[in-house]
Parts: sequence; C-alpha cells; structure tokens
Amino acid sequence: MDKAILIIQCKDQKGIVSAVSAFLYAHQGNILEIDQHVDQELGMFFMRASWELESFGLAKDEIKTVFEQQVGNQFQMQFQLYFNDRKPKMALFVSKQSHCLFDILSRYYSGQFDVEIPLVISNHKDLKRVVEAFRIPFHYVPMDKENKADTEQQQIALLESHDVDFVVLARYMQILSGDFIRKYPNKIINIHHSFLPAFVGAKPYHAAYERGVKIIGATAHYVTEELDAGPIIEQDVARVRHHNTVSDLVQMGQDIEKVVLSKAIKYHLENKVYPFGNKTVIFY
Amino acid sequence: MDKAILIIQCKDQKGIVSAVSAFLYAHQGNILEIDQHVDQELGMFFMRASWELESFGLAKDEIKTVFEQQVGNQFQMQFQLYFNDRKPKMALFVSKQSHCLFDILSRYYSGQFDVEIPLVISNHKDLKRVVEAFRIPFHYVPMDKENKADTEQQQIALLESHDVDFVVLARYMQILSGDFIRKYPNKIINIHHSFLPAFVGAKPYHAAYERGVKIIGATAHYVTEELDAGPIIEQDVARVRHHNTVSDLVQMGQDIEKVVLSKAIKYHLENKVYPFGNKTVIFY
Amino acid sequence: MDKAILIIQCKDQKGIVSAVSAFLYAHQGNILEIDQHVDQELGMFFMRASWELESFGLAKDEIKTVFEQQVGNQFQMQFQLYFNDRKPKMALFVSKQSHCLFDILSRYYSGQFDVEIPLVISNHKDLKRVVEAFRIPFHYVPMDKENKADTEQQQIALLESHDVDFVVLARYMQILSGDFIRKYPNKIINIHHSFLPAFVGAKPYHAAYERGVKIIGATAHYVTEELDAGPIIEQDVARVRHHNTVSDLVQMGQDIEKVVLSKAIKYHLENKVYPFGNKTVIFY
Amino acid sequence: MDKAILIIQCKDQKGIVSAVSAFLYAHQGNILEIDQHVDQELGMFFMRASWELESFGLAKDEIKTVFEQQVGNQFQMQFQLYFNDRKPKMALFVSKQSHCLFDILSRYYSGQFDVEIPLVISNHKDLKRVVEAFRIPFHYVPMDKENKADTEQQQIALLESHDVDFVVLARYMQILSGDFIRKYPNKIINIHHSFLPAFVGAKPYHAAYERGVKIIGATAHYVTEELDAGPIIEQDVARVRHHNTVSDLVQMGQDIEKVVLSKAIKYHLENKVYPFGNKTVIFY
Repeated sequence: MDKAILIIQCKDQKGIVSAVSAFLYAHQGNILEIDQHVDQELGMFFMRASWELESFGLAKDEIKTVFEQQVGNQFQMQFQLYFNDRKPKMALFVSKQSHCLFDILSRYYSGQFDVEIPLVISNHKDLKRVVEAFRIPFHYVPMDKENKADTEQQQIALLESHDVDFVVLARYMQILSGDFIRKYPNKIINIHHSFLPAFVGAKPYHAAYERGVKIIGATAHYVTEELDAGPIIEQDVARVRHHNTVSDLVQMGQDIEKVVLSKAIKYHLENKVYPFGNKTVIFY
Repeated sequence: MDKAILIIQCKDQKGIVSAVSAFLYAHQGNILEIDQHVDQELGMFFMRASWELESFGLAKDEIKTVFEQQVGNQFQMQFQLYFNDRKPKMALFVSKQSHCLFDILSRYYSGQFDVEIPLVISNHKDLKRVVEAFRIPFHYVPMDKENKADTEQQQIALLESHDVDFVVLARYMQILSGDFIRKYPNKIINIHHSFLPAFVGAKPYHAAYERGVKIIGATAHYVTEELDAGPIIEQDVARVRHHNTVSDLVQMGQDIEKVVLSKAIKYHLENKVYPFGNKTVIFY
Repeated sequence: MDKAILIIQCKDQKGIVSAVSAFLYAHQGNILEIDQHVDQELGMFFMRASWELESFGLAKDEIKTVFEQQVGNQFQMQFQLYFNDRKPKMALFVSKQSHCLFDILSRYYSGQFDVEIPLVISNHKDLKRVVEAFRIPFHYVPMDKENKADTEQQQIALLESHDVDFVVLARYMQILSGDFIRKYPNKIINIHHSFLPAFVGAKPYHAAYERGVKIIGATAHYVTEELDAGPIIEQDVARVRHHNTVSDLVQMGQDIEKVVLSKAIKYHLENKVYPFGNKTVIFY
Repeated sequence: MDKAILIIQCKDQKGIVSAVSAFLYAHQGNILEIDQHVDQELGMFFMRASWELESFGLAKDEIKTVFEQQVGNQFQMQFQLYFNDRKPKMALFVSKQSHCLFDILSRYYSGQFDVEIPLVISNHKDLKRVVEAFRIPFHYVPMDKENKADTEQQQIALLESHDVDFVVLARYMQILSGDFIRKYPNKIINIHHSFLPAFVGAKPYHAAYERGVKIIGATAHYVTEELDAGPIIEQDVARVRHHNTVSDLVQMGQDIEKVVLSKAIKYHLENKVYPFGNKTVIFY
C-alpha cells in the first residue's frame, strides 16, 4: 500500500491534533497511524501520522506546500514528509567483526528491512566474500592512520556517488571526525557495546567485568561529535554471572548488539525516530 | 489537575480522529494524551483521549450529551467518560496468601494507586491484622462449601453496600459462579499463576515443573465464565533452571504474580484497558 | 587447551562427588569445571566435570576403561566421555526461511561454534548461494510428498556418509518420521516458534494473536516422536502489544527463534545438556 | 532438615574438590549442594558445599576444628561454617519510602525469608504503625545533622543490644560514616536506584531522564566507604519510553528496587554470596 508519513515538531499549543487531522480528513486521507508526544518540560509537541495515498485528494508533490499553507505555518511547525514508495539507501561500515553485518544482511535478504544497500565499506577485506554473496558491492578502503582525512574523503565520495541517505556503523571500530559527522547529522547510527552511559569509551566488556556487574548491555545511538553521547535509539541487556569471563561477555554481548542495532535501523527506516537534543522520541 | 478521559469504540471509518479532536478544540480542550488503535481484521476503531477540565468550555455534566450529539451519534460510537476527581472503589478478595495483597496495600499506602479500598473480603482470618493496620475494614466471609450461593450472596451484599466499582482477586483461590461474574462484566481482575494459555487450571507450577520449561509466568486477566480464558491484561515471566524445585517455582512466581497483578490494576484504574472479545487494547 | 568432559548419571547415593574427584586427583587431573544436580523426586544424580588433559596421568584411550573400573561400576553409572580436540559434525536442515540459518552461519564464521558443518540439506534451493559463500556444501533434496520415506532415505544416506553427529532443524517446516527420529535419539534439535507448551502445532503466531497474549516466545527442544513434546533445552520471550499484527509477531518472533536455537546448539556442542525423560539438565 | 553450609576461599590448586568431598564422605555427610568457581585471572578458588547434619559423623561444634586440621590448613583456606538451625538477625533502616520495607515484611510474614527482624530503625515516624502490625519493634532515631556521629552511636547501640548480624538499608536515604561501615564489613546491604555504575550518586532517575536512556535499573550492593562502589549482589532493569516522566521512572523503578533488594537479602541469608574485592560470587 502506498502511504505518506508526516513527522512534526513544534511548540506545544492547543488545536494541533485537530488541525492536522482536519487537514487529512478534508483531503480524504485514511489515517493509518497517528501518535503524538508532548515534552512537558520543554513545552514541545511531536507527532507522527501516516495515511493511505491511493484515495488522497492531493498529489504527492503538492502535499508539502499545501500542508505548509493550511497547517504548518500557523503553528510554526518543522516537519518532514516521507513516502514509502522510495526505498532509503543505507551504507554499512564494517571492520572485521561479522555479527552485526550478517544480522543486517539476513534481514535485508528476508525483506524485513525495506531498504537498498548500495555498498558496504570496510578497512579490512575479511568480509568481502559473504557480502558479495548477497550481491552487494564491497569497497575496501584501508585506514591511512597518518592521513585519516584522506580516508574519510574516499568514504564520503563513495557515499555521495551512491546517493546514500544514512550510514550504519556495524562495529566499524574507528572514530569518525567532526567533519564527517557534521555532513550526516542524525544520519549515522552506531552500536556501542555497553549499556550507556555506563562504560563509555573503549573496552566496555573489560570494564564491566572489572566492576562485577550482573547485567551487560548494548546501545544504538546517533553519532554526534561528543563520543558515545548522541541520542539513544535503542538499548537492551543480558544477565551475566560470576563465572562468565570477559570472552563470555563479548559473545553474550554480540547477541544483544546485533538485535539492538537492527531494531534501531528498523525504527529509522520506518521514520519512527525523532531525535531532539540528546534524546529521541520513538513512535512505535 | 482535573481531567476528563474519553474511551471510544466504533466501526473504523474516515474522519473519526478529526471529529473527536475538532470537538475538543471547539470547546477549548487542551489535549493531554491521545491514542488510537485500528483492529484491521475486525474493522474496529478504538480511541482514548484525555484533556484538562479547567479551561474546558463544557460543564462536566454536559460533556456526555453534547459529545453524543456532535460526534458520537454520527459514527455510532460506544464510549465511556471518566473524571479523575472521583476515586474508583476497589474491593480485594483474598485467602491466606499475602504477597499480592501486601503489594497492593503498599502501592495504596504510597499513593501509587489513586483508589479507595472500602473493604477486603476473605474466607480466612489470617490477614486481618495487617489489613487493619492500613485502616481498611476486613470482612471474614467463610466459604460454605455446601451452599456457595449463600456465601456469594453475602459477598455481593458487601460489594453493593460499599458501592464497589471493581473487584480484584488477589490469590483468592475460589472459583466464582457465573451469576457473580455476570454482575461484574470486565470488572473482576484475577491473577493466574502461569503464562496463559499454558498450564490452564490448578497447580500450574507443578505442571510447569513436570514439563521442564525454562521460563515460568503469570497472567492478569478479566474473569469470564470460561475458566482462565478471559481477556488478558498483563503477563510477565521469569527464567528458571533445572535445579529449581516446585517450591522454588512457587516463590519465584510470586514475584511475578504481584507485579503483574498490580500493573493490571493500575491500567484498569487509569482507564487504559479496553476489553473486546477475549482480548484487550491497553493504551499505555 | 585440550580437555576431557565427563557426563554422569546414576542413582543418588553418598560418596559420588568424592569418588569422582578422588579419581581425577589420583591421576593428576586439574579440574576446570564441576557441576552436579540431584533430582530429589526421581532420586537421580547428574554430574558434569571437565579437566585438563595435558598433565593427566591416563592416556585418552584408557580413561573410559579405568574410570569404569575404579568408579563407574561401583555406582552403576551411565556416563559419556568427550574430548574437545574432535569437532562434532552438525547437519542443518532448512527450507526457505533464512533467519535461523544465517544466525548459525554467522556464529560458525566467527568461531563462536566449535563445530564442523559438513552439509546443509534443504527441500528448496533458495538458500544455496549464501550457504556456499560460507564454503559449506548445499544439498537440495526435494520433498516427495507421495513417498516421504524415500526422501528421508536420501537424507539419512547423506548424514551417514558425512558421519554427522547431530542434526539441527533450522525452521525446516517438515515433520520427521518416527523411523528417522529413532536413528538420532536426543540428537535432533528443533526450534518451535511458540513458548511451549502454549500453542503446540502449526501456526503458533496466529494462535497467539487470536488469544491476545502480551508475550510471545520460542522453544528449542530435542525432537521426539510426540510432536512438540521433546525435552526443552532453551526458551525465550518478547513482549507484544495490541497493535502488533500477526506479521509483526512473526518478525519479532524470528529474533527470539534464532537466538534460542543458537543457544541450544551451543549448550549441546559444549556437552552441557543432559536430557532425561522429557526434561533437561543444563550445566551452564 | 538440619544442614551445614561451608564457604571456602583459597589459592587455586589441584585436589581441593577431592579433599573437601573426601572429608564429607569420610564423616558420612550426604552432600546436598556443591558449587565451585575458579577466578582464572586472580588464581583464586571459591567453593560452597552444604550437607545434612543428621547422619553426619561429627558434632556441630567439632566440625570447624576437624575440617581445619584435615583439609583447611593444607590448602591455606579461609572458610566460614554456617548451620541453618540459627536464624540470622537482620536490622532494617528506613526513612519515609515504604516500597522496599513492605516487600521485605511481606516475605518475612510468608516465611520466604528465614530470618529474625529484631528491629526497624528510622529517622521518620511515618512507617511505625505498619511495622508494628507485623509485631516488629520500631525505633525512631532522628537524624541530628549537626552531630551525625551521635545519631550513629545510638543506631549502633541498638544493633549491638539486639545482636544484629547484618543491616539492610531499605531506601534509608542517609550516607553512613566510614566508622559505621567498618564495623559491619560486607554486612550492610544497600539498594541504589540506578543500574550502577551508570548514574552514581543522588537523583539517578532524573539523570536517566536527562540522558534519554531506554532502560532503567536498580542495584543491590554491599556498602563500602567509597559511595556506590561496593560489591554488586544483584541488578535488574525495566524498559522505559520517551513519554515516561521522571515521576513515571520513579514508580517503575520502585518495582525493580524492591525485587532486587529482596533477592540480594535472600542470597545473603542463604550464605550464597562470596564478596571478594569489589565483586561477588553468587552460588545460586
């Protein structure tokens, strides 16, 4: 079914739901989902609505302008409009670890992710054969430690030439520069292998082991310039015991990492994530 | 804050959200929460909306009639209207086991449950002292096995004399008659000590032990005439291991039972549960 | 590190732990893990011990006989002895669904499973290309519905020619005959897409949707002749809501299925599962 | 059943399990549970064994000396010996919040905790009536902010006069001095309302809300002089969403706090916790 998805943010005030739903009704829109959230502290209003396009009274390329005139301007809304007939383009950055990559490819293969994957970029060649079995181009871009900016230029050129919408760091293990991150604001999803904000930084499983925690976790978040501090999209945890070694923690953690990252990708793909400040509204 | 809560059910059709939100806006209602659900299979629409009463343009006793005229009739809606300035009255039925009762009393004491508890009814005297420490009247109504109908008549008389809105069976251990149940449709909440529909009936922990399951659970549901088959409100589970005895399962299960039952009570109290058929919509 | 693993079952009696640990000590065995379980109801004793082989005073091919003479016979033990220098051989049976297969291949690739996979058998060709990218032979054995026995004969011939130790049904979707099952007692692991014993049989997600449960699950078990009734190895669950469709349940369930099946495989591979009756002891 | 429990710690070396189990067998001990753990990193060995006293060949007051001579000295073991015929004495420290206290009292009432509670100490009078309904003396010891040492002296005098074995801070909300803590090493259990080490210190739910985490937690730990850094006994978590306010987090967190604290108390009561450094071995 062809559908439109509208995501709105504005100052909280009376009449917003009424105005948006009246707009959709006036143009014969059959509402499929509608969800709203008010952040009382900030006085901000967030909304997500989706409706069927088939019977809708406005053409796809008219909707934005008409909505702005009839509703958006009045409430000073920021909004995005998406259509599900265009698949987003997702690039994967990987290194040597395979668990997140294979989990994503598995969902891509089975149709669970409604996405195009025009390329996988890696600083190691290990995962090339399996990626290509899924008929996805694999680009080996070695990390030039002396000149990281050059490496990133090559990566960005690849992303731009493939018209990539967003990037997933599937255990990429390298820190992106501020220049790279600013090109893709809230468009780079990372998986951190701890229950943030616990164990920020490198070697979180070692740190968890040293502290003697009884539960470990993983966190998918948008990448911002401050390391491991971006808006959290999804988290999950697993129970560990005293007899689990660091290596057990790594293996148990991988099961969480891959599911958490894939859930975050799915929310992002379905336009269900609204980042604001260092938080997210997730309309699921 | 004084607020109104409207719960709606009707056949799915275009314009419902628009009509309800326009009604609220037209009368200066500040929407606090709005949530909707469409059951595609049944073609049914469900909605829950809450708004502030202070600035609202209709008096509390007008709202029902005006809404019916302006919105309800047009869409052939069934709806209920609640106001949070009247605390619902909840009766507790208990037997000898204390874990669910004490959990409920604890939440009542701390103000987590916005409810009145005009009475506790029990077929045993064991729990009298603690109930009375919470300044709640305790009624001992022994079960007359020869004449269960008489016992239930006494119970119903107590409920009616206290104007009770709904009943919670906090491990009451007796099966209510169809006559009793029909007096309180979707107004009696029971906790069953298994992950329904597994292990229906008596001694579910024994059955779980015999089957060798690795996870046990508990289920809060509305009581219907078919045993353990009513609409499920909430469930949760806990992991068990081969070394756990039946008695371990009973203890581990109690932790789940009490939390699941209390969550179900909270959803019911906040008018967030919409039962239909043998299912529930939970607007949380 | 080369190690031996001993799994014991016998009637419960005094002195077993002492006799086994004295045996290991007498032959200079450095105990790595020791775990025991007494089923009080059945009066049965279960034990798992592992120790380093390097410094051990008995040759690998002597251990069985000497243990039997010095300990096993006295307590009338049934026991198995394993060495970690021989990788078990696992065959995968699949159909069209890929999520469990890819999860297993991913763990095989990363070295998380210490196993050989000499072949994948399928009644459909869909998954051939990806399996072969992992350099595993893929055998297409179409299901001859008129003559299922013939199909099973081909499958068994393949298993025998590859000296397969155990079989994993990774969403194979066909019911094996009693003849097949009796050839591999407690050597065939299946994943059932419900929280058994709830929703036995076909279409469990549809049944879960109809019943309105708030939690769904998956169960890995050894295959026995009675359908879905074999010893449970592992289970897990996920929370669902009223707005989740059957198709959502299927997708959410796949995340549980694959992790539960892979955990069960890992326990089996590490000789941590002791099935008895329709239960299992899991020494983890 | 009368039983003995032996908890051992020593340098890892060959023959420990053999020596301990041979000792028990030589004196006709029927082993009920035996569990061991080797910390490979530290080279430390931990063990817990329990056995029936009835048929045991040594008198209760001989066991310690004989074990030391026959086993303990040889391996330079540190060990503790417990008998289940003496109930430990637990003091509860509370303030105004009731959820943890009522949960503990509920388990005490139902016999789930095999413990004596000779007193509850509080710096507020609010919870007096309910505590006394359970026939437990309630001591009001107001916090003298100018002279905290005096207040603690009163508390310690009460603990000593009641021969208290260990102390539970059931949301006591005051920080104990180093002098107090050193009197009860690994004998004071606290519940911290975050998933430590995330959100150390005051107001963790506010901090969790600000950070936008998707999961909150609670941690039971032994109190050491460094705030919130003592050995963790138990943790658990709950999922939260963007629409949950700080006040929701507080309520949802209370459900975790009380269950986590009560589990920690149970492990401690059953002598299943072995703290070492800032970690714990939990023999469950």
